[in-house]
Amino acid sequence: MTSPQPAETRTQRRSAQTATLAEIAREAGVSAPTVSKVLNGRADVAPATRARVEELLRDHGYRRRRAEATRSPLIDLVFHELESAWAMEVIRGVENVARDTGLSVVLSESAGRLTPGRTWADQVAARRPHGVILVLSDLDESQRALLTSRSIPFVVMDPAGDPGADVPSIGATNWQGGLAATRHLVEQGHTRIGAISGPTRMMCSRARVDGYRAALETAGLPVDPDLIVTGDFHHEAGYRQGLALLRRPDRPTAVFAGNDLQALGLYEAARELGLRIPQDLSVVGFDDLPVARWVGPPLTTVRQPLMEMAEAAARLVLDLGRDDGSAAATRVELATSLEVRSSTAPPAV
Amino acid sequence: MTSPQPAETRTQRRSAQTATLAEIAREAGVSAPTVSKVLNGRADVAPATRARVEELLRDHGYRRRRAEATRSPLIDLVFHELESAWAMEVIRGVENVARDTGLSVVLSESAGRLTPGRTWADQVAARRPHGVILVLSDLDESQRALLTSRSIPFVVMDPAGDPGADVPSIGATNWQGGLAATRHLVEQGHTRIGAISGPTRMMCSRARVDGYRAALETAGLPVDPDLIVTGDFHHEAGYRQGLALLRRPDRPTAVFAGNDLQALGLYEAARELGLRIPQDLSVVGFDDLPVARWVGPPLTTVRQPLMEMAEAAARLVLDLGRDDGSAAATRVELATSLEVRSSTAPPAV
Repeated sequence: MTSPQPAETRTQRRSAQTATLAEIAREAGVSAPTVSKVLNGRADVAPATRARVEELLRDHGYRRRRAEATRSPLIDLVFHELESAWAMEVIRGVENVARDTGLSVVLSESAGRLTPGRTWADQVAARRPHGVILVLSDLDESQRALLTSRSIPFVVMDPAGDPGADVPSIGATNWQGGLAATRHLVEQGHTRIGAISGPTRMMCSRARVDGYRAALETAGLPVDPDLIVTGDFHHEAGYRQGLALLRRPDRPTAVFAGNDLQALGLYEAARELGLRIPQDLSVVGFDDLPVARWVGPPLTTVRQPLMEMAEAAARLVLDLGRDDGSAAATRVELATSLEVRSSTAPPAV
Repeated sequence: MTSPQPAETRTQRRSAQTATLAEIAREAGVSAPTVSKVLNGRADVAPATRARVEELLRDHGYRRRRAEATRSPLIDLVFHELESAWAMEVIRGVENVARDTGLSVVLSESAGRLTPGRTWADQVAARRPHGVILVLSDLDESQRALLTSRSIPFVVMDPAGDPGADVPSIGATNWQGGLAATRHLVEQGHTRIGAISGPTRMMCSRARVDGYRAALETAGLPVDPDLIVTGDFHHEAGYRQGLALLRRPDRPTAVFAGNDLQALGLYEAARELGLRIPQDLSVVGFDDLPVARWVGPPLTTVRQPLMEMAEAAARLVLDLGRDDGSAAATRVELATSLEVRSSTAPPAV
């Protein structure tokens, strides 16, 4: 699939002078106030008219001037889903920056779809926030164009897919984390190490498992594809896939789980099969949620600085909204670190 | 402390005809547009003028007519603090109702203060949401008056203090929950049962411990005040107070914790002292967070239907915002239920 050129790039290719609102109106055969209504996300415009105006705004790479775009003191925070326990860390990070800058946070959920619905984009256009932070969620091309034409900046946090080089994003060093987790297990003397991967459509899952593979390969250990299983990032997947791994006759003595919730599911599978952690099975998680310290035994895991990542995303999106173009790096990965606790030990001989 | 009469009550005592905006302006010695600016939370009004206008609005029990008050498609959700894991359940509940009604959720945190700051109230007035849901957080009298004068309805969820009979609220049957948890332990044969209470300034904490006492008394067991300890609702308090309880020479054989996080802290204290759950110590929590099922052993706990409570609060606040006064019950407690898992057993003989 060849994706159309992003609106931003096209704008830059055209002369600095883009179409005015009046020109868009003329070309669409409507009045200037009608174009304004579309830009403001007002409901009282016929769908066909709206579609025609949106298309022209996009074709012309129209960008509302900052002076025209009165901002509401809001930041939009959009989650792919709110179920995950780590959403709270992210919310706290954005909330911290919002509070310091006198803004409020509007929370929404794209409810399992990987791109938020069209209605959502209209609502955002209507409320004119200072910026939009997307968590494990991505915008489609027309939604991006819609935000760009309203001069509403956006940042993707921990991108689910490859957001494209022109999309500002904040992530963590997932590959390094997978590497460090698996090296730790290798150093303990494990040679049969399994992995539970998160969904393969998410780049972060792929990067973690690639780090795991790199650790095995650089240690001269074979990578057994049968020991790599895949599931979503919830407890249930860790439990189910954990049972599958641990019931094998040649079961692994250690498992690197895709995240902490999967690791807790794996704990349950081990309990059910009468395997003790860490004596019979070593487990490493990913995220370092508060609960990782509280389970028995406390979980060795890769710390992902979720709150700091969210703070960085919020600061970046506010920087992007300033006219001076002071936003420096628009693609940042914050460092992960291994937190060794009590769920890992040398394998029983 | 005698608290001043709520604005609502005074309004009802006056004739149905309250002061108009023009009358307020005349009395304050300002123009009507200035009063409008204050009502809309605009920043360009001198603080002294604003204070005088607010006072008059309050004294007159002024309520903006619905027709004047253009609403933004928003619901405000205010937390006492976002740290607690159960905040996510509440957010999901409000988010569910918001999505169904085409509204977005603005999230804020009163950051440890039990009443959100004055700035917050101004921001709410300025953004004119359909309603405000306060979670474990309460408004002071002037903030209530401010929302009332703008016809912005509000509901308190799981009130921290006694919100007053005129404040709509949604809670859970905390007393019944404490009773059921403790009766379960009594039925298992325990006679020395400790309790970790949440903060005593919160009515929900008091109700839970009162239920615990009632269970002991109706079973003819003594209530030993030394076995009742108090801490905040976090893991750390459960750990610290758990250690204190379990290090007693006459340690309890079972403990009713104030919430699940405290119960997990108690798990850690038991591990540290080499006490097995449930063989050496039975534990009951409160809330039934997702993690309660995942810890080892899975935690017996009192289920509080947090998501349903949040949905009820959101529906109630939207009902209150309708002119027809169709909101029926404005003080609701949803039922709690005991979820028996593996952390409770008869005491060792």
